[in-house]
Amino acid sequence: MSLIVVGSMAFDAIETPFGKSDKIVGGAATYIAWSASNFTRPIKQVSVVGGDFPTEELKMLEARGVAMDGVQVKENEKSFFWSGRYHMDMNTRDTLETQLNVLGTFKPVVPDSYQDCEFLMLGNLAPSVQLSVINQLKNKPKLVVLDTMNFWMDTSMGDLEKVLRKVDVLLVNDAEARQLSGQYSLVSAAKSIMEMGPKYLIIKKGEHGALLFNDDQVFFAPALPLEIVFDPTGAGDTFAGGFIGHIARTKDISFDNMKTAIIIGSAMASFCVEKFGTTRLKELKREDIDHRIQRFKELTKFEIDLDNHWGE
Amino acid sequence: MSLIVVGSMAFDAIETPFGKSDKIVGGAATYIAWSASNFTRPIKQVSVVGGDFPTEELKMLEARGVAMDGVQVKENEKSFFWSGRYHMDMNTRDTLETQLNVLGTFKPVVPDSYQDCEFLMLGNLAPSVQLSVINQLKNKPKLVVLDTMNFWMDTSMGDLEKVLRKVDVLLVNDAEARQLSGQYSLVSAAKSIMEMGPKYLIIKKGEHGALLFNDDQVFFAPALPLEIVFDPTGAGDTFAGGFIGHIARTKDISFDNMKTAIIIGSAMASFCVEKFGTTRLKELKREDIDHRIQRFKELTKFEIDLDNHWGE
Repeated sequence: MSLIVVGSMAFDAIETPFGKSDKIVGGAATYIAWSASNFTRPIKQVSVVGGDFPTEELKMLEARGVAMDGVQVKENEKSFFWSGRYHMDMNTRDTLETQLNVLGTFKPVVPDSYQDCEFLMLGNLAPSVQLSVINQLKNKPKLVVLDTMNFWMDTSMGDLEKVLRKVDVLLVNDAEARQLSGQYSLVSAAKSIMEMGPKYLIIKKGEHGALLFNDDQVFFAPALPLEIVFDPTGAGDTFAGGFIGHIARTKDISFDNMKTAIIIGSAMASFCVEKFGTTRLKELKREDIDHRIQRFKELTKFEIDLDNHWGE
Repeated sequence: MSLIVVGSMAFDAIETPFGKSDKIVGGAATYIAWSASNFTRPIKQVSVVGGDFPTEELKMLEARGVAMDGVQVKENEKSFFWSGRYHMDMNTRDTLETQLNVLGTFKPVVPDSYQDCEFLMLGNLAPSVQLSVINQLKNKPKLVVLDTMNFWMDTSMGDLEKVLRKVDVLLVNDAEARQLSGQYSLVSAAKSIMEMGPKYLIIKKGEHGALLFNDDQVFFAPALPLEIVFDPTGAGDTFAGGFIGHIARTKDISFDNMKTAIIIGSAMASFCVEKFGTTRLKELKREDIDHRIQRFKELTKFEIDLDNHWGE
């Protein structure tokens, strides 16, 4: 009974208006595992790295209950590398360099020891790789969550449409929801996307929070207004990790519990951006997370007595 | 004991991706009065119109408890006129034409019958006009709320700084908060702005909701995700009207009651955008408003039991 996480484990080099990182460890599955392992264990990782990926990083995750049987290590090859520069608004970034390396030929293999999994988190990756993992599972998971991005809509729309038919929850940002649906209104976009396969759609809006759609239900989750956003890299993956981590722990896939999961994901993402890479996630204690969730509760709490607000 | 509303009463001609209006009645004080008069009466209007402004429109507002003693009618002049075109995202617009007309020489005069007012809503207008109204009041109001825009930051920053020192609550959008403070982070921007005079800052973010700041407190209000935003003109004024209308009715200027007022303002704004101009505001019944507020309650409601969410 556990959670499978699929995605890249890689290197990033990041420039922001506040500073420049060395080549540091990143990758969607890395952030998801660091975030989700606060809530649920074991996690069963599916990824690929080169011989240059630090063994120490894999060991740190193993110590947190993340199984590495599904992580291929290609000793003579190099790990995926991405380098980018954020603009002042921290919402837009330019890619400076992408080296696919091991990711270019990645054929995921789901080990037998992973076949008992109830939850599947497909981190941002080629849709064909995401689909291959779904197809290798002998039992349909209780919930399949997929994260993707505009790059795959531009280059692999056919594959993306195929995998969307097999997922329960889709995570995208607002621009991607508009691109995928061809609709400007996010309500109309959500309706179109929910006809493509996913029953639930989560639209991540960065500093503006997140929306959850299911049928005619909508939930509007806040983001914590932050004084400093130091490095947004991995924030979306960290959000996904908190979301699926909470769902996998509670095994409750109701709309109400997804709302809770989104708040927990938002709280985790708000930590991620405070330092470069996974630094902040590695320092976190339960008290920190509880304290942050408390701030989210206070952020949106209001009382209106509908029977009495006209006051006559 | 009542509310003074200051602002333009004017004509607009609006183009959106969905259609084009004739020259229709608009203006900040028009929208504010239509919105606030759902919650509090009497309202005491301060404005100026030309001989071309329809008497019928003034009468409709009078019938809702809006006093017109402070509205100057310049029979031989023309009312303020603005024409604009919205882009597909409905968040950006181009001004096609502005005719100041009567507004160019407007010297507001506060009638004696307005001197008992406890609440003052300064709609978007030249800061020197807003300041003149404050200076004419013999008693300091319980709460002064000011709405402004980037145009005044560009052209009348000195006057704006002067009036800001005398107001309690400032309403601006996120780009304007950044421009006014020179800070990118909205948390830092809020701190800077609260040192300029206002103790409370409301940042309107359109489809992304609104933020309320006071000292170290923050409230994040949602916006209702809408399928169709037909015409955003006046949405900010309608928000302001709902906000100050609720405050004036309850006479409670606590942070908690301002949160309620923001939800009511947001609900009112969500109606405004559904049709051209003030059309939708004129149709509203109490049940409509209550039903909309109920939707706002459902939109952000979530439960997390902090003692139990780790579940061990």
